[in-house]
Amino acid sequence: MLLCRFGSNQLGVVRDNNVYEVTEVLSDLPQYSYPFPTHDVLIANLDSLRPRIQQLASQSKPIPLSQIKLLAPVANPGKIIAAPVNYLKHLEEARTDSEIHHSNQVGEIQRVGLFLKATSSLIGVSEPVQIAHPNRRNDHEAEVVVVIGKAGRNISAKNAMEHVAGFCAGLDMTTRGPEERSMRKSIDTYSVLGPWLATADEVPDSSILNFRLTVNGEERQKANTKDLVIDIPHLIEFASSFYTLHPGDLIYTGTPEGVGTVNPGDTIVMELDNVGNITVKVQALGAA
Amino acid sequence: MLLCRFGSNQLGVVRDNNVYEVTEVLSDLPQYSYPFPTHDVLIANLDSLRPRIQQLASQSKPIPLSQIKLLAPVANPGKIIAAPVNYLKHLEEARTDSEIHHSNQVGEIQRVGLFLKATSSLIGVSEPVQIAHPNRRNDHEAEVVVVIGKAGRNISAKNAMEHVAGFCAGLDMTTRGPEERSMRKSIDTYSVLGPWLATADEVPDSSILNFRLTVNGEERQKANTKDLVIDIPHLIEFASSFYTLHPGDLIYTGTPEGVGTVNPGDTIVMELDNVGNITVKVQALGAA
Repeated sequence: MLLCRFGSNQLGVVRDNNVYEVTEVLSDLPQYSYPFPTHDVLIANLDSLRPRIQQLASQSKPIPLSQIKLLAPVANPGKIIAAPVNYLKHLEEARTDSEIHHSNQVGEIQRVGLFLKATSSLIGVSEPVQIAHPNRRNDHEAEVVVVIGKAGRNISAKNAMEHVAGFCAGLDMTTRGPEERSMRKSIDTYSVLGPWLATADEVPDSSILNFRLTVNGEERQKANTKDLVIDIPHLIEFASSFYTLHPGDLIYTGTPEGVGTVNPGDTIVMELDNVGNITVKVQALGAA
Repeated sequence: MLLCRFGSNQLGVVRDNNVYEVTEVLSDLPQYSYPFPTHDVLIANLDSLRPRIQQLASQSKPIPLSQIKLLAPVANPGKIIAAPVNYLKHLEEARTDSEIHHSNQVGEIQRVGLFLKATSSLIGVSEPVQIAHPNRRNDHEAEVVVVIGKAGRNISAKNAMEHVAGFCAGLDMTTRGPEERSMRKSIDTYSVLGPWLATADEVPDSSILNFRLTVNGEERQKANTKDLVIDIPHLIEFASSFYTLHPGDLIYTGTPEGVGTVNPGDTIVMELDNVGNITVKVQALGAA
């Protein structure tokens, strides 16, 4: 199932370039008052809501995808985790390019660990990336994103995929500079997620997923998750050895070689097998 | 006003070692369904709720503080921001102690920037810190915590204090190791916040706040915010030059010299002028 959020917090199922609205199912979620849950309630209840979602979709009229505004497919992630330098060839390019490493050591992921991106930086693909520090280099980083479906701590790699609700395409937008990643990569609009959530059953084997990124039609990044230094099950094991993973938590799994600069006016396209394609505009901060 | 969260998500005003329950005021908050706001709704509405809170407190019976369980005073922070090496003498100790720097460069805060702690690591002071990696060094870091009250981006230091709802005492618990701070400091229970929120009017001058930390009665840290490398207004300016600050966002402002190890069985006490004192137990992960 391809599940999108669109318009004014509506929910829909995507099939053949159409959206079938199923927003009504949200009224089946538990009701909450302050304080609100710190995980994503829709993702936590996805399995039990699924029959009703499919029923509603079958009764719904198709809306062409071209007519809707796509929102971030996960509305309330508790945390956004990201893997640095998780493809060997990107580690090599980061170590040789002074505009990337800024005189900092670029360690291997096993040493550097995972980092966090602010949830306030999250956008869907219909919203533009807004360049905040135009005097610095701002890069695209195409990544496969894992959406956690079931809470867990100290999850073993062997059981990790049971904790996955699905997958999205993601851009871990990055301002270069000397600061820690958790600051430079947390600028508003610098975590792009979309186009929708492909539930786990849509992805027969996430260890051999192809993806590709172009800027203004020019190919910049092309990779396959088989080249991940730490694969998806071991990323989940690594992350959950430090903190509990909760439903809706996102793991940006790392970017391959070919990162490069974007500027206002550019169009980024990312294609991710089994999931879908995203098209994202780049603007100057505050541009109309 | 000293505003605490306690028991089963109850709200209270603290006076003279008693709590006066005002939970009823939460029904005056706007109602929400999924997706939930990504900021703290109580903090966002604190000014308008204040007269009703004070009225309810005046009609309420005192409950001795000793009888209640204190929860984290901010329930739904969107992000937890923290300042590394923000006291010069701590920078010196971090650079000379290989168990702290782990062969990583320890840069100055202006270069390193701010980092994020996972919101899933947040606890109140009645809950114990649980040591997850007992084979590593686990340190206390006493910090003054700023609670953001009003959203803003690119806030100038001059206007920064208008965006502050209040202050808490905080422990930025830390597992030493080579990984980025945003991983090592995000372990479940490693962000302690309490004992309550002291609203901004309780703190006549946050630029000269004394605080002190003991472990099992032995003094470890003693400092004053006048020795911050980047003071509170400039931390807000720095953070908001990267991302929007939202009501309920927390800024751990940095720890002074004297950081040191804690072990299961230890008791950490932190005293913070104008705010209050916290007492936190340290346990092994999973201990009863």
